[in-house]
Amino acid sequence: MIILGLDPGLGTTGWGVIRAEGNRLAHVANGRIATDAKADLGARLVALDGALASLLAEYAPQAAAVEDVFVNKNPQSTLKLGQARGVVLLGAAKAGLTVGEYAPTLVKKAVVGTGTAEKAQVHAMVARLLPGVRIDGPDAADALAVAICHAHHLSFARNSRAGLA
Amino acid sequence: MIILGLDPGLGTTGWGVIRAEGNRLAHVANGRIATDAKADLGARLVALDGALASLLAEYAPQAAAVEDVFVNKNPQSTLKLGQARGVVLLGAAKAGLTVGEYAPTLVKKAVVGTGTAEKAQVHAMVARLLPGVRIDGPDAADALAVAICHAHHLSFARNSRAGLA
Repeated sequence: MIILGLDPGLGTTGWGVIRAEGNRLAHVANGRIATDAKADLGARLVALDGALASLLAEYAPQAAAVEDVFVNKNPQSTLKLGQARGVVLLGAAKAGLTVGEYAPTLVKKAVVGTGTAEKAQVHAMVARLLPGVRIDGPDAADALAVAICHAHHLSFARNSRAGLA
Repeated sequence: MIILGLDPGLGTTGWGVIRAEGNRLAHVANGRIATDAKADLGARLVALDGALASLLAEYAPQAAAVEDVFVNKNPQSTLKLGQARGVVLLGAAKAGLTVGEYAPTLVKKAVVGTGTAEKAQVHAMVARLLPGVRIDGPDAADALAVAICHAHHLSFARNSRAGLA
């Protein structure tokens, strides 16, 4: 199964594509979608939407996931993030994908084994879990982390149904 | 010129279409797009996107406007609002519309004449400025108000260019 992880943002959206077969994970691709801060909001959302559509067409993921959002920053940041997140979730939903949403502590637990891990630990573990990966910055690392979390969750759900968990 | 005003929200998005010719305004249509609170977020955003696309196709507006957002509510509300707003701004931008954004005080000033007017006054003036209108609730009234504000702004900009203001 091909899984797309996303870390939405108006300025930069991180993305990561992995392949999950049973408990085995492999890296496919990762990167960043950046929008022009000098462009107007509508144009930035269109750019984000178009870049996401290209990713969905190129990698044809069967599942997608995002992190639940921290909303304890300033409200204007939350609004911007919400606008980008809405566009990303719309694009995924229109492509027929159900998007898993995971709390940050769940993502950390899936990747590192503890919900209180530091960002740097999470990124280091992402690199270890996906041998040979070259990660295009922290947003892409976060996106790969949530993709890994989704893979674990789907695998656990499958094993539970099979009576293995 | 046909102007679409929008008051985005995840639960309910108000919309209002007016025709502006010089300083004359006429009501075309108004209403609400409601999404199913029991559906998942992606499905709600797809429903909102689809309903907006229908409006754009039916009324073919040449301009659109939204209110700047109050972000002093709770952060989860701001995030939800942002997600809906992102979808609405994306849909308008993809239809080639530049979306005017107006502070609430500007909208009140355009409709009532003072930036400190109460909501009820604004809604009453919307009904007076658009004779014969039947307004489909407060969200539609807000959407009509921002459409009126945009009409004034465009008319003022035109007069300024013509040396009349």
